[in-house]
Amino acid sequence: MNTSVAVEGLVLAIVGVVGSEHVRSDPASLDAYGQDALRQGHAPWLVVLPGSTREVAAIARVCHESRVPLVVRGAGTGYTGGAVPTHGGVVMSMERLNRILEIDEVNLLAVVQPHVITGDLQRAVEAVGLFYPPDPASLDRCSIGGNVAECAGGPRAFKYGTTKRYVLALELVLPTGEIIRTGSKAVKNVVGYDLTQLMVGSEGTLAIVTEITLRLVPRPPARATVLALFPSIRAAVEGVTALIQRRVTPATLELVDADSLDAVRTHTGGEVAPAGTGAALIVEVDGMQAAVEEEAVIVIAACQGAGATVVSRAVDDQDRERLWQSRRMLSESLRATGLLKINHDVVVPRGRVPELFDLIQELKERYRLRIAAFGHAGDGNIHVNLMVNRTDEAERERARQAERVLFERVVELEGSISGEHGIGFAKARYIDIELSADTIALMKRVKHAFDPHGILNPGKVFPD
Amino acid sequence: MNTSVAVEGLVLAIVGVVGSEHVRSDPASLDAYGQDALRQGHAPWLVVLPGSTREVAAIARVCHESRVPLVVRGAGTGYTGGAVPTHGGVVMSMERLNRILEIDEVNLLAVVQPHVITGDLQRAVEAVGLFYPPDPASLDRCSIGGNVAECAGGPRAFKYGTTKRYVLALELVLPTGEIIRTGSKAVKNVVGYDLTQLMVGSEGTLAIVTEITLRLVPRPPARATVLALFPSIRAAVEGVTALIQRRVTPATLELVDADSLDAVRTHTGGEVAPAGTGAALIVEVDGMQAAVEEEAVIVIAACQGAGATVVSRAVDDQDRERLWQSRRMLSESLRATGLLKINHDVVVPRGRVPELFDLIQELKERYRLRIAAFGHAGDGNIHVNLMVNRTDEAERERARQAERVLFERVVELEGSISGEHGIGFAKARYIDIELSADTIALMKRVKHAFDPHGILNPGKVFPD
Repeated sequence: MNTSVAVEGLVLAIVGVVGSEHVRSDPASLDAYGQDALRQGHAPWLVVLPGSTREVAAIARVCHESRVPLVVRGAGTGYTGGAVPTHGGVVMSMERLNRILEIDEVNLLAVVQPHVITGDLQRAVEAVGLFYPPDPASLDRCSIGGNVAECAGGPRAFKYGTTKRYVLALELVLPTGEIIRTGSKAVKNVVGYDLTQLMVGSEGTLAIVTEITLRLVPRPPARATVLALFPSIRAAVEGVTALIQRRVTPATLELVDADSLDAVRTHTGGEVAPAGTGAALIVEVDGMQAAVEEEAVIVIAACQGAGATVVSRAVDDQDRERLWQSRRMLSESLRATGLLKINHDVVVPRGRVPELFDLIQELKERYRLRIAAFGHAGDGNIHVNLMVNRTDEAERERARQAERVLFERVVELEGSISGEHGIGFAKARYIDIELSADTIALMKRVKHAFDPHGILNPGKVFPD
Repeated sequence: MNTSVAVEGLVLAIVGVVGSEHVRSDPASLDAYGQDALRQGHAPWLVVLPGSTREVAAIARVCHESRVPLVVRGAGTGYTGGAVPTHGGVVMSMERLNRILEIDEVNLLAVVQPHVITGDLQRAVEAVGLFYPPDPASLDRCSIGGNVAECAGGPRAFKYGTTKRYVLALELVLPTGEIIRTGSKAVKNVVGYDLTQLMVGSEGTLAIVTEITLRLVPRPPARATVLALFPSIRAAVEGVTALIQRRVTPATLELVDADSLDAVRTHTGGEVAPAGTGAALIVEVDGMQAAVEEEAVIVIAACQGAGATVVSRAVDDQDRERLWQSRRMLSESLRATGLLKINHDVVVPRGRVPELFDLIQELKERYRLRIAAFGHAGDGNIHVNLMVNRTDEAERERARQAERVLFERVVELEGSISGEHGIGFAKARYIDIELSADTIALMKRVKHAFDPHGILNPGKVFPD
């Protein structure tokens, strides 16, 4: 297929659908759309920017009939290469489908096109007293469509769940070109199979999302944000356990280790925690004012009881925002070290977080690696960043060995190799650590039921 | 297949798996296991009671190889015929797989076999300060496995969601005999497709659930239960709207109409509401003590503002339990009228509940039917019971006409023909009102990916 003549035919067919102004094939575009936050990947043959569901369906039919790989792309903020080709083909960027179609205050829902930016939706619904909880760190750049494809989470998932809890209905284009709707605007629906939930987290391999109906919740009227500094990661983890045992469900329960705190301090100059701090917890409780006050007292006492050296509560929104901005800068700060940041978002049952940190310490020593870890301790979902010298091939090889051991041991801890970033192609070779051959075979049969020619996002989720 | 010789071979093969003491083929058993709460259905050729996952897998293989229908049965409390054969075959009752395997207080989860009774699990986890919210009215008789198959809800779904929000992981036996595991004990998991959620609500047509890992939440430390009586259904619905507009999320927001109140009064002699009451709301708020008090004040004010004639708060647990017992007796009370109760659990976006009640009124008048309606007003999920004289064929025909109009109009209201009872065979002929031909074709391809010979629960969900 990848001969220039065949590609020319494909370009003509696709220009026929969207017009030449919405097709890109210049080298700079092919390069840009061949990358995501993983910073690996392969350039497409062309990039198409459809403007309607009808155009998406027509493009799918072209690709289906000519067996051309079709990679649907949101904002390209993913960490596992989900939005970039592995072998060329067409990238379909959803960037023109970027409108909030409806915010329904009576039914507490929003209808959006896939390329609405997550943070924009949040601000729009909060303006009318509603709340869309999922808050990936990239929320000011990532799109809802990408969040649906990967089942994005974020700090608030501890209390509020991940993207999947909020997706009520979808308009989908099947790779064979049919347009279907799943779910409904009703909050309960058990008619036929739950294709809506099957789609969430399917990483663009089953169908193309062209419209999303999201459940919203009332905006919590009050919140309290507490920063607790600990002498060691172990003490911070004890703080997490103490909180859960007191049956408090904070909105967020974020843990940041010393290496991550150092990187933020160096990169931003900001002083969340003084040098020498072993670990930090950011705990936010929200809800009715009276309950928030009651819970904040429990949070502060639990952190102090676990050995926190400093426990402070944000005094106002500005103070709070400064804290969260530091948290969201973690990945950027780690990348700014100049080291290669190999990011894994493993997850374990929350009670096994101490064992996960023991494992991280063991990997640091055994493979002589620098590892910065932070993340959603309440969910047991920790971002484990192997920080590697790009030019040191021996160190890169040790990192590869360490990552396989990390995944194997996380599964032994009854956890999972990805909590919210997905598999993409970056982790596809590891999927059999977690899933049995029978399970993978079944998933491939499900994939075939949607996509008989295997055109949608080939090389993702399952190894090639 | 249904010749006595072939059935004898099947019996021998299945007795070889479980022993003759766990196979039933006497007429009384075949009759009993050929019925559920719908009180229609077809007797199986035999009933098998497996005692282990390995036995379930061996039975599946026997049925798969001999193309025999296999109907998996929980407690038989469903309203849509999901647990009974349509054409004979084998009923596999899960009643021996009835153990709570684990309650994990650190990780807030429970691992159970499918035939654990929902209410028993609730009591067991509440004893250690935890909470399993889904509360179908049949909770003292229904099983968790059946709840998973149908995605059971209940009053508390308004705040806490239905069964699907709590299912973290499953052990499954595929109809082809493989044993697989989906999900994990981690609360987040995006590795491969979400087969766990695909299974919930699949009505026993995709695979056989042999073990369930459930997420639990902390038991709310306080609650307040408010009963509000209204002069009309319209006033009660206004109360619901007022509450949602005040951004309160009660745990439950149950609405009961006058016909339903009358039936309870007649059947139980209990006096929830005096004769002449137009409608009742049962509103329960739960959470931290301080928040509960704050919300209870808002609830009472909203009900009074909407025109409630009586608003009372349960003074103690006994008072509260009496109220909920009346609510759970609604179905039994309606059946005790001697009329045939044709129960539909339609659902609309919550803001359209007034239009749904207008529709019910229209159907009452146009088809000259008695209709008793009650249910989960906060979710827009209303149980619409057509109460029909069994021996009046003309009335039964009017009911059939009314039910099709009900479903068509509910879909026009952007709702769904079932919120929590499922399709079974009772609603299979109506599924195309809600789902397009392309969607049904896709669902059938998914079914085929699991069950290539179509042995699992044939005649359910999709029309034969």
